[in-house]
Formats: sequence, structure tokens, C-alpha cells
Amino acid sequence: MKKLGALLIFLGLAPGVQAATMQDVLSKAAPSDWRPLDPENTLYLELPTGRVVIELASDFAPNTLANIHTLVRDGFFDGTSINRAQENYVVQWGDATEKKSQGSAKAKLPAEFTRALAGLKFSAVKDVDGYAPRVGFVNGFPVAANAKTNKAWLTHCYASVGVGRGDTLDSGNGSELYVVIGHAPRHLDLNVAVVGRVLQGMDLLSTLPRGTGPLGFYEKDTQRVPIKIKLASQLPDSERSHLERLRTDTPLFQQLVAVRRNRKDDWFQAPANHVDLCNIPLPVRAMKMKK
Amino acid sequence: MKKLGALLIFLGLAPGVQAATMQDVLSKAAPSDWRPLDPENTLYLELPTGRVVIELASDFAPNTLANIHTLVRDGFFDGTSINRAQENYVVQWGDATEKKSQGSAKAKLPAEFTRALAGLKFSAVKDVDGYAPRVGFVNGFPVAANAKTNKAWLTHCYASVGVGRGDTLDSGNGSELYVVIGHAPRHLDLNVAVVGRVLQGMDLLSTLPRGTGPLGFYEKDTQRVPIKIKLASQLPDSERSHLERLRTDTPLFQQLVAVRRNRKDDWFQAPANHVDLCNIPLPVRAMKMKK
Repeated sequence: MKKLGALLIFLGLAPGVQAATMQDVLSKAAPSDWRPLDPENTLYLELPTGRVVIELASDFAPNTLANIHTLVRDGFFDGTSINRAQENYVVQWGDATEKKSQGSAKAKLPAEFTRALAGLKFSAVKDVDGYAPRVGFVNGFPVAANAKTNKAWLTHCYASVGVGRGDTLDSGNGSELYVVIGHAPRHLDLNVAVVGRVLQGMDLLSTLPRGTGPLGFYEKDTQRVPIKIKLASQLPDSERSHLERLRTDTPLFQQLVAVRRNRKDDWFQAPANHVDLCNIPLPVRAMKMKK
Repeated sequence: MKKLGALLIFLGLAPGVQAATMQDVLSKAAPSDWRPLDPENTLYLELPTGRVVIELASDFAPNTLANIHTLVRDGFFDGTSINRAQENYVVQWGDATEKKSQGSAKAKLPAEFTRALAGLKFSAVKDVDGYAPRVGFVNGFPVAANAKTNKAWLTHCYASVGVGRGDTLDSGNGSELYVVIGHAPRHLDLNVAVVGRVLQGMDLLSTLPRGTGPLGFYEKDTQRVPIKIKLASQLPDSERSHLERLRTDTPLFQQLVAVRRNRKDDWFQAPANHVDLCNIPLPVRAMKMKK
């Protein structure tokens, strides 16, 4: 398949496993350029088809994260389901019956859509962004910031996980979560609490049949996908997914951004001199286990 | 399902069927705000699961479009397959054997990655774009432009259809096509010929199982999805998909962009005052048939 081989070279330069340049950068990474996941902030969303690994962003939305921790520890999500899959938008999960007890979790929470920029280790990129004065990363998560208002917030990129809410700002308590499966709906930024990011298993969510009801909700019980959610820390070591992420607060990561801003391989005739926040790769890999 | 009802209000404001504001605009549309598809530039990509409707952008890449027309009329694609589905990137189709005759189609074509801006009816939007000096629309297709260089080009948004090529700029002849199924890979702009857009049936492509080979290529023949492609003009009227698109060169469309730039319903507490080119909806609907 000669021609497909050529095309491998072509489209291979963009997303997942990268050709020369990004690989060059990663090949120079020291062990300290990577960090493990925090088991206390790692969710395993278990589907019949496999495990989705979500990391919660511990620098943001503390009350919302505490409520999610409570819900997960109480087993709230176990036996609930994925209820919605909307094309080029989101997949959403929670209690379709809306009758399940939420135990000791709070029913309402103050809006945590932003936090203070001060005190954050914010690694900015220089690229212009239409939705915010500055964009960059905090501990591996894509973040926008406004220095004038001293605010920072997690952004809606592909694979970002957010908290569904109703019309009132305090109505998102973490019992309904969604993940972005399409072009970044950045207009949702500042309007809802983003809490984390899917690090592994996105394809298990993005390939779900789209719901035929309004907004992609499934119309029949049989279409809903049963789920359970556990914190990594609730499982014995042998049952955990041992992953590590490339740190985003390092010179090496800035090199990675640079080679994505301007691709340097033979295929690209017109480097972009720009990279969209949501197109910057956030590499995840299996940890090398000690023998 | 009271709470899900509330969430309907919430996430309903973004993509497909829109709430109040965008619906308000569309409800004011006159018949002349819509246009039918050109049967000579409409492809029906037929999958076992249904039909995908693709419109080719007749203002761009004339030699590439002519080659695609030749390939389709010669039946080249019939019996070929979808060979690749890469997460958050593209689905690609063509002749996996690479042995099938391409008949009278040209094997190589000069690069048609841009055209002259002059002579185009380009409806710009005011929103900043990191990848190009100006962005907007031409006849319903998202387009970027550079007035200084007098160049315009179709952009890689979700649902954009492009022509795979190898390392040389003249190696994309239209026999391998791909569609974007993830966050817009705008870095591909100016490096490859974009030729059209999927108008209906995106979910049939975006939900395909991701390939397990490098770059999402399927590794087994049995994973490949058989296809055929016809021009709408090749089919009798009774077998065509009668769709029309909202025109993008009208005051009404600019109103639509405005209400997407700043959402005005109760749910949004923080309007963005910006809309990304690839987040601007391009409505498609079934035509009202004459009795």
C-alpha cells in the first residue's frame, strides 16, 4: 500500500503519535518532564467497552471537586448511565431517573467558573486567542486568563470534562458531567465549571451512537450506556491505570508547542506560525513499572 | 426528568438545533435566504448505514474538482472503502488496494491550495483568527483570506472534506478523500486542497470505530467500510436528497453570526463577544417539496 504509506506521512503529522519533530522533542524528555496522575483526582469511568480515565484539575473549583469526590465515594454514579451523545458537541452522563439519592453531596453549589489568576503556576503560550486575553496551561490543563480581572478558568477543548447545570448558576453540583467530543465550544467557558480532562479512552465516548432525541439525548432506556465511576485511590494498585502526563510547566513543553506552531518536516509547505490552544497535544503514556 | 429538562435548556444553546436566539433569526429567514445544492457538485457517499451528503465548493480547486468528477462518474469509488478513522482527527476513504484503475482521471495535479481572493464573493466576519488575517464564508463554506497576498482558501473545520496527498504537492488527485471529525486542524490549511463539506450524515462517519493501526488506519479488510459515491446529478430526482443551505452572503446570516458571538438567552451569564470560524453554524434543511 505504497500510496497509503505516503498518506501516512501526510496526515500523520497532526494529532496523536507525531512524526519527526514532536517525537524529537519527546525523545529528549527527562523523567522529570513527566508527572504521575494523582490517584485522589483520577476518575475511572467504566463502560461496558472499557475504561475512560479522567483527571480532575485540583487547582480549580474546589467545592465542585469535593462534591464530585463525595458522589463518587458514595457510589452515586454506579448504575447510572450515559444519557446523551450529541454530534460535534458533548457526551453526558448521570442519573437518568433523577430519583437517585445524592447522599451527603450538596444539591447546590456556588458557581466556580473562575478562580484567581494570582497563585496559579500559569504557563502561557504567545498565541492569540479569540475568547480570552491569554491562554496556556496549568498542571497539564488548558487554561485561559485575564490579568486585568485576575481571573483564570479551565477551557472547553476536545476531551474537557464539565459540570452540567440548569438556568441558575448554582445548579451544577457535579452529578451530571459531560465531555466535549467536537470542535471546542469555547463559548461555554466562563458559563460553567470545567473540572478535568479525559486522558485515555476518548474513543469509547466519541464513537457512541448519537442520541435521536433533542440535543442528542437517548430516547430509550436500552440506548443508555450503564456506567460506574471510581477514584483511582479506591482501587488496589493492581487495578489502576498507571499513566503519566507530560508536564506543561517546563522548557521542554514550550519546545513542543513551538514545533507544533511551525511544523518543520518535509510535508508542510506552509507552517502556520500559530497553534490553537485546543490543538496543543498533551501527551499521556503508560508508566514504566518498577520490576 | 425535570433536571434533564433544565440541562436541555443549558447545552441546547450551542450546536445543532438552537434555542431562542438563533431560532429567532432563522424564523425570520425568507425563501431567498436559502439556496439549493448544485446537483453537479453534490456527492452522495453511500455507506451501509446510510447516505452522507457532501457539497463541493465550486469556487475553489477547479482541476481537483474536475478530477473528482471524473473519478465519481467513472465509478472509481464504488467498491472502495473507508480505510481510516483517527480519533479527534479524520476519517479517510479511497482504494485500499491502490491497484484500481483511475481511468481517465489525472494521476497528478498542480497544487490548488489557494486561489485569488479577487473575484470571490467573500463575506468576512470581524472575529480574530490565529491562522489567517481574515476569515468568513464563500457560498456557505468557511474560508480564510489574506488581502495582501490576494489569496483565499477553504479552511479545515469540523466536517470539512479534503484531498489526501503524499509528500509532493502535486500528489493529491482526489482519489483519497478525508473529512475532519475533531477539533479543527487548521494547521493543515494551505498545505492541502480542501474541496467541500459534509452537510448531512456526519454522525455516520464520526462514530466509526477508530482504527487500531498507525494513524487510525484499519488493519483488517473486515474493518473497512464499503462505500460508493455518486453525484446527485447522476440519480433520478426521486433518489436525491433534497436539501437547501442557509446562504452566507446575506444580512440575515450576519445576524446569525452576531447572536452566536454573544448569546442572549438567560442561561449565558458571560457572552463571549467572539465566535470561532468553525463554531459558526451553517444550517441545512430539507427542502419543502412542491405538491
